[in-house]
Amino acid sequence: MNKYIEELTKYLDREPLKRLLMACEDIRTMRVRGAGKIARYAARTLKETCLNVRCNSSTDYINAVKKIARCLVNTRPTAVSLPNSMRFILNRLFEDYKSGIDDVDTLKDLTAKYSDSFIKNSLDAVKTIAELGSRRIKDGDIIMTHCHSTVAVKILQKAWDSGKHIEVFVRETRPRYQGHITAKALASAGIPVTLIVDSAARYFMKDVDLIVIGADTVAVNGAVINKIGTSELALVAKESRVNVMVGAETYKFDPKTVSGELVKIEERDWREVINEEKLKVIGNIKVRNPAFDVTPPQYIDIIVTERGVIPPQAAFLIIQSEFKISLPHIRDPWE
Amino acid sequence: MNKYIEELTKYLDREPLKRLLMACEDIRTMRVRGAGKIARYAARTLKETCLNVRCNSSTDYINAVKKIARCLVNTRPTAVSLPNSMRFILNRLFEDYKSGIDDVDTLKDLTAKYSDSFIKNSLDAVKTIAELGSRRIKDGDIIMTHCHSTVAVKILQKAWDSGKHIEVFVRETRPRYQGHITAKALASAGIPVTLIVDSAARYFMKDVDLIVIGADTVAVNGAVINKIGTSELALVAKESRVNVMVGAETYKFDPKTVSGELVKIEERDWREVINEEKLKVIGNIKVRNPAFDVTPPQYIDIIVTERGVIPPQAAFLIIQSEFKISLPHIRDPWE
Amino acid sequence: MNKYIEELTKYLDREPLKRLLMACEDIRTMRVRGAGKIARYAARTLKETCLNVRCNSSTDYINAVKKIARCLVNTRPTAVSLPNSMRFILNRLFEDYKSGIDDVDTLKDLTAKYSDSFIKNSLDAVKTIAELGSRRIKDGDIIMTHCHSTVAVKILQKAWDSGKHIEVFVRETRPRYQGHITAKALASAGIPVTLIVDSAARYFMKDVDLIVIGADTVAVNGAVINKIGTSELALVAKESRVNVMVGAETYKFDPKTVSGELVKIEERDWREVINEEKLKVIGNIKVRNPAFDVTPPQYIDIIVTERGVIPPQAAFLIIQSEFKISLPHIRDPWE
Amino acid sequence: MNKYIEELTKYLDREPLKRLLMACEDIRTMRVRGAGKIARYAARTLKETCLNVRCNSSTDYINAVKKIARCLVNTRPTAVSLPNSMRFILNRLFEDYKSGIDDVDTLKDLTAKYSDSFIKNSLDAVKTIAELGSRRIKDGDIIMTHCHSTVAVKILQKAWDSGKHIEVFVRETRPRYQGHITAKALASAGIPVTLIVDSAARYFMKDVDLIVIGADTVAVNGAVINKIGTSELALVAKESRVNVMVGAETYKFDPKTVSGELVKIEERDWREVINEEKLKVIGNIKVRNPAFDVTPPQYIDIIVTERGVIPPQAAFLIIQSEFKISLPHIRDPWE
Amino acid sequence: MNKYIEELTKYLDREPLKRLLMACEDIRTMRVRGAGKIARYAARTLKETCLNVRCNSSTDYINAVKKIARCLVNTRPTAVSLPNSMRFILNRLFEDYKSGIDDVDTLKDLTAKYSDSFIKNSLDAVKTIAELGSRRIKDGDIIMTHCHSTVAVKILQKAWDSGKHIEVFVRETRPRYQGHITAKALASAGIPVTLIVDSAARYFMKDVDLIVIGADTVAVNGAVINKIGTSELALVAKESRVNVMVGAETYKFDPKTVSGELVKIEERDWREVINEEKLKVIGNIKVRNPAFDVTPPQYIDIIVTERGVIPPQAAFLIIQSEFKISLPHIRDPWE
Amino acid sequence: MNKYIEELTKYLDREPLKRLLMACEDIRTMRVRGAGKIARYAARTLKETCLNVRCNSSTDYINAVKKIARCLVNTRPTAVSLPNSMRFILNRLFEDYKSGIDDVDTLKDLTAKYSDSFIKNSLDAVKTIAELGSRRIKDGDIIMTHCHSTVAVKILQKAWDSGKHIEVFVRETRPRYQGHITAKALASAGIPVTLIVDSAARYFMKDVDLIVIGADTVAVNGAVINKIGTSELALVAKESRVNVMVGAETYKFDPKTVSGELVKIEERDWREVINEEKLKVIGNIKVRNPAFDVTPPQYIDIIVTERGVIPPQAAFLIIQSEFKISLPHIRDPWE
Repeated sequence: MNKYIEELTKYLDREPLKRLLMACEDIRTMRVRGAGKIARYAARTLKETCLNVRCNSSTDYINAVKKIARCLVNTRPTAVSLPNSMRFILNRLFEDYKSGIDDVDTLKDLTAKYSDSFIKNSLDAVKTIAELGSRRIKDGDIIMTHCHSTVAVKILQKAWDSGKHIEVFVRETRPRYQGHITAKALASAGIPVTLIVDSAARYFMKDVDLIVIGADTVAVNGAVINKIGTSELALVAKESRVNVMVGAETYKFDPKTVSGELVKIEERDWREVINEEKLKVIGNIKVRNPAFDVTPPQYIDIIVTERGVIPPQAAFLIIQSEFKISLPHIRDPWE
Repeated sequence: MNKYIEELTKYLDREPLKRLLMACEDIRTMRVRGAGKIARYAARTLKETCLNVRCNSSTDYINAVKKIARCLVNTRPTAVSLPNSMRFILNRLFEDYKSGIDDVDTLKDLTAKYSDSFIKNSLDAVKTIAELGSRRIKDGDIIMTHCHSTVAVKILQKAWDSGKHIEVFVRETRPRYQGHITAKALASAGIPVTLIVDSAARYFMKDVDLIVIGADTVAVNGAVINKIGTSELALVAKESRVNVMVGAETYKFDPKTVSGELVKIEERDWREVINEEKLKVIGNIKVRNPAFDVTPPQYIDIIVTERGVIPPQAAFLIIQSEFKISLPHIRDPWE
Repeated sequence: MNKYIEELTKYLDREPLKRLLMACEDIRTMRVRGAGKIARYAARTLKETCLNVRCNSSTDYINAVKKIARCLVNTRPTAVSLPNSMRFILNRLFEDYKSGIDDVDTLKDLTAKYSDSFIKNSLDAVKTIAELGSRRIKDGDIIMTHCHSTVAVKILQKAWDSGKHIEVFVRETRPRYQGHITAKALASAGIPVTLIVDSAARYFMKDVDLIVIGADTVAVNGAVINKIGTSELALVAKESRVNVMVGAETYKFDPKTVSGELVKIEERDWREVINEEKLKVIGNIKVRNPAFDVTPPQYIDIIVTERGVIPPQAAFLIIQSEFKISLPHIRDPWE
Repeated sequence: MNKYIEELTKYLDREPLKRLLMACEDIRTMRVRGAGKIARYAARTLKETCLNVRCNSSTDYINAVKKIARCLVNTRPTAVSLPNSMRFILNRLFEDYKSGIDDVDTLKDLTAKYSDSFIKNSLDAVKTIAELGSRRIKDGDIIMTHCHSTVAVKILQKAWDSGKHIEVFVRETRPRYQGHITAKALASAGIPVTLIVDSAARYFMKDVDLIVIGADTVAVNGAVINKIGTSELALVAKESRVNVMVGAETYKFDPKTVSGELVKIEERDWREVINEEKLKVIGNIKVRNPAFDVTPPQYIDIIVTERGVIPPQAAFLIIQSEFKISLPHIRDPWE
Repeated sequence: MNKYIEELTKYLDREPLKRLLMACEDIRTMRVRGAGKIARYAARTLKETCLNVRCNSSTDYINAVKKIARCLVNTRPTAVSLPNSMRFILNRLFEDYKSGIDDVDTLKDLTAKYSDSFIKNSLDAVKTIAELGSRRIKDGDIIMTHCHSTVAVKILQKAWDSGKHIEVFVRETRPRYQGHITAKALASAGIPVTLIVDSAARYFMKDVDLIVIGADTVAVNGAVINKIGTSELALVAKESRVNVMVGAETYKFDPKTVSGELVKIEERDWREVINEEKLKVIGNIKVRNPAFDVTPPQYIDIIVTERGVIPPQAAFLIIQSEFKISLPHIRDPWE
Repeated sequence: MNKYIEELTKYLDREPLKRLLMACEDIRTMRVRGAGKIARYAARTLKETCLNVRCNSSTDYINAVKKIARCLVNTRPTAVSLPNSMRFILNRLFEDYKSGIDDVDTLKDLTAKYSDSFIKNSLDAVKTIAELGSRRIKDGDIIMTHCHSTVAVKILQKAWDSGKHIEVFVRETRPRYQGHITAKALASAGIPVTLIVDSAARYFMKDVDLIVIGADTVAVNGAVINKIGTSELALVAKESRVNVMVGAETYKFDPKTVSGELVKIEERDWREVINEEKLKVIGNIKVRNPAFDVTPPQYIDIIVTERGVIPPQAAFLIIQSEFKISLPHIRDPWE
């Protein structure tokens, strides 16, 4: 890290550098959290820092931009929204640069423009998805959901607000009961909610018309990585011919999967599953607590993005067009 | 009830009648609990009461037996093991009676003999099932189980004791965490155990070789009614070509399903799912808490009974031979 | 035929022979029709004719019975209920005969007894099936049915009469629109009915809770031969996890399939599909009109018989116990 | 409507306005019918009307074009080919306009060019699809089809004309028997045809090599909306590993589905299903008559378009490239 | 072994003992081979040896019978036909003994009778199965088979001989090419045969109407253990809705599976897969050569036995009735 | 051919023409073999020949290029890599030409540039695919493969070299045992290998984590044409929820399938399956020896190309972008 900072002192005065480092700290310490918020915060920081870069040549500027982006990306390397914001901005900027634009001021303007564009898209995304997704819900639909996803909740709320009477089954979502948050959000919007334990999904599935869920990450083949239990729900839905609709902003699509990388499934603290006292009573056992699982594309009807409704297999397209991935050299722009 | 008691005073002295009524009370108030225990307790009570019946004719005796059985069955009409113990004894007794045996003392002896026979079978059943079931487990098998079932635990323990190294994934089994009891039982036997949340079953299923579970009730077509979440587990296992082995004593097989009755799925108190305080925070929602679900026979490889290993579709045969059901007049012998 | 008649003159006076031949004619010309009616008519004719047989030895009597049965069976060799009535009676009679009973009068009595028994069973069967089948219907169920089947209609009516509110989708059942008959029967019982074209089944299936159908023939492995379109309906139901319940009297189970015979699918007159004028307009094409198709057992949840509810695979058992089939010499008793 | 007309008087003389209104009337009253014909008629009308627009500024011209397009679209708002012709032309025109072309005459030329281009594409489409689709048919293939689709018929005819011996099973397609039209078309081309009732598809499927059908609408995820019964046929084909080939001109692909809209399934007059007299005999029942159903993409092997053979999931791509949809603001160009 | 012989000297003179031991040797050294031949040879030896037993009491006789049976069974403990022949005879004999028959001469007669009965059944079995199985083949059927099975070949030959024109695809059946034997047998009967490599089954499956195979062992749940590759063939058939017919004499059904035992899959010499020279070229690798695999019952339509055609799940019934298994004490009669 | 050569004499001197014809001969006689090698050899020959074209106008040059390409393509018309190299170069060149570049020297430079580009891509492809594909393999994975594919071997080797401990099951791949080549390649890299017969795949599948295979051709819908037995393996993997990863260079994707052409399945000499002597012993039978089969896209998880990891359905996209296919006129550029 220190090395980066030293390099950056070439391009940045003390003040903007300090502000950059504080922003990085905000992300690292999770003072800023939530996929969308982190991504926009990073984009804004990139823009402001870049506007303060001191340099004479476009080569230097591009170099500085890379170093600033790397600083930001390194704060939380496993998330997908943060590097995606950098990919969105840098790949566009570098395309322009390669096409011959080499005036530093113009490049700064473009940096600002693409940052603003990412932020705007990101802010509008949930609203657009809610609008598009809600259209696929019919009056009278009984819907099942899992965990807590802002996008999923907004889709349901939008459907309700547009006068469709829906009812929602919410799985409690062990081990952290995020289903309770979802239940509260829906109930406070006036939507009739039924809370169930996770493994009762199949019992009620015959009455369900649609599954609506969010996504943590979308892979290139349309596989959806989401809270543990999602893939089981999707399988149970498939068995009863119930469609699965996934809401996902485009910054949830992972370009790394195009280059073969598998999405890593975080395994969280076992104390979320059982507390230490109870475990002591049980004796010497292992507790496993994977946070996510992978739902294969054939169990998903459609993914709703702010670029439109797509079949899961079109994830490849979204990644290409959104992040200007140039194949085959799949290397991140800050590398 | 009072009517039955009055009728019984014709056949029973004060003391045996009192003992019968106390036994009924023991069952009703759940002082005696557990499918097997209740059934054996009822069989023993029937025998002892019948030996004390005062009567001159076999007609009277048969009549008394019916009334005593009815008393016992009425204590918990929805369970399956209690009426099954009565069906086992009475149908055998009445076959003999219809074949011409009409000496009261002989009939009493037969009542005692069939009661003892039911009790002995029932006591031996778990042991036999453990023996048979354990043979289908291979050294090195990774097994997943659900809820807590004595039969399932005994099968696993027997396999372990016979020198097979196994590992067991135990689902915690919301809402009442009976998985903890299973984990404790297996761990104290020295078996390596991994505890997981229910909805993580699919995440780990690719490493699993076999599912071993118990049954609450087995229907005539081989469908298994068991703790909520069982059918989801069986579906997930099917998707990965993992076999499901069910351990079930024959008194879990429900003759009523031959006459078309659907097994009723109890819905338990919602406070098992969420406590009142937390619910208040969430707001006005419904909570549903079905205790069981139905696993269709095509998701089950075999059922292990004390009469041998059977395909689920042979449930029909077990019911016929075990409870001497005479079709088409499917009426219970005490009716 | 003439040969049989000549042979029968040895055993029968003119009057009873004439009555036998007239009865045969009634069946052949379809003056008597409907699976149950034909079977009972044949049983009654057999009984009455046999009581009039003139002979001195039991060998002669048994010989006469065979010839009379053969006469009756030959009137409509492809139906299943008619030979089944003869199998029911003759196999029981011949068991007795083989066990040493060789007094002609006793054998006549037994013939009468088994005939009466078949007739009574047959008359009670539909009522029993309606009772058992109706128990598997829940209040509020939406049911789909196909073609016209007395048993299916009675099951639905019984459910309705016992206070369960049901709704029924009726497929019109091309080419002969037997769905209209079903719709009329249900509507006149007050049951809410919706008529649809056959190929709309999948469109409505997501709202359906249960399929209830009859059977033309049940094969040894539980495959159900029924009106063309049944297997398509069962497949569509399976795709949506909707259970299929088949109502079938035991005389619909075909013992011939135990000895490997395939149930023949009748192909009916093409004029049922399109009239000659319209065909002339179309030009030179073929029209195919198979009357039945085969639904495999894995698409069927249960079969309701008057002997109880069974899994389809128990068809083998029903055939064995009902028709006293003695393997491996699977030859019909009149042969 | 009147409001539009009033607005249009600003841009159009009496004669061209009158011709426009008459063309609208032709479409509304179905004097012009058939997806392709309507679309081409509208494109031609748009071109001719636009060439007559009086205005000074490009802004005015663009405004006029929108109003004219809206007039045409409003005549039959639920069809998909008519708005698609307008999207094809307007989105291309507006792209040019946004790229800086603002000379009215040039814009008129472009309007004419894109209209002509749409018309030519549309006219060639069926021929191209027939050519491409026929290549996927092998000599000796037995094919099943449903309803009447020009595209499907042309594919089959082209295969036959290129010397492949095929046989075709035609489902009659209740309730309107469009199968008869298909049978006639194929028979008159010399192709051996077998007519069957709809629900006999599964009976014959084991002999079938390929399903060839048309499409009413194709959704963004590759789901095909087509005549009621199509999805049942596709399911039956899937069960027997028979491929389904869909022929669909690109103007059948619905851009509205990208923005989440569900394709509406028209429910037609119940008198198509049963006539009033017959219904009276049956009594008080409901008759439902949905005209279409939805075949999910996993039951479809390929869709043949005039842009080439595609997997169903590429529908998203076709919509993007054909109609120049600019996301996320999915608003129709005339809005 | 020596211990048994010593014990047997109590009951047998030198000559019959010597003949018994030579017979055992014949089986052990595979001078007698083939499931049916071994079983009949053992039955005949048992009969002849038992008739020569010297003893005074029935207790002694029964004891001797057990010892003789044990001698025979121990020669090849893993086969299923040999112990099944002993189970068939001894369980019947011991039933008689338990029912009170205790005259040694009578018991000897019964031993002879049951031995003869087993031998006769066994000899007739293949013929009966060929007859029953051939009835399920239709004129014009294209059939695929695997490995070499006398029963399967006889079924096909019987169908051909009864005038049905069939064609047969024969998989070569690596590693030992038993398909060549099948091809030769069928070809010499005049049946058109096509030889293919094993993994080409799916390529040709769309043209196939029926799978006909034999069985090495049938388990209690209807699973069929047969030559490696059978389960793959059955899966491929299922995918294309092609029925699988298994021919299996009842002595192939394994009563041990009722008591939970898994059928052991023999792993044969790797030199069958690749010769040593070729392996040396490849280098240091493992070669695995399992001889059999397990086809689950849901991939099997029917099993043809000499007791009739049965659904696979009726295997339980066959085992019960054929080998007079008395549950739950599942111990072999010679133990 | 002679006609082409005559035409080419207009554009080429004797020497370069001779070299072109010799290169064609090298390909035709399979002196140059292997999909990649042929394609690169053809690209190099095209470049060198074109640089020697004598002509005055760009029209003449383009004409010459077409003729030279046609010469090369005609040497082996059924392969896919050779015409793909020509499509890659010519379609790019003609795009430039159509966009107005008409200086012959510039066009020659472009021809050279695109040829070099194809060659470089092709050379890098395997390495890139190995890198991307290896990332999807986890430490400890047990992998199964089929036949011999350079790409598949390289993926496995790369995974091993990057420190992942894997084990590989290799199917021998009848009839030509290419599995032996794969086994040797992997073993010599130190990877633990187990060789099995093809039809043992299902027996071992429950222990397998991943299938890795190459491709002969990829069709527009993502179907993979590969060595006979591949589709059976993929089906068996699907049944056990095991993912299938296909490695395929983009020049394996067949643009002809976009225009409806079915990939032809070569049927090779039957002597590969059985030698003549052995056949003589068997008698008069047919032997079929298809070299490839078709694996449908729903059995494939991902395809790894040098353009990145894609879902199979994105094959359409790869073909479009890689070969600049301009629809609907799907005619090859040299035509």
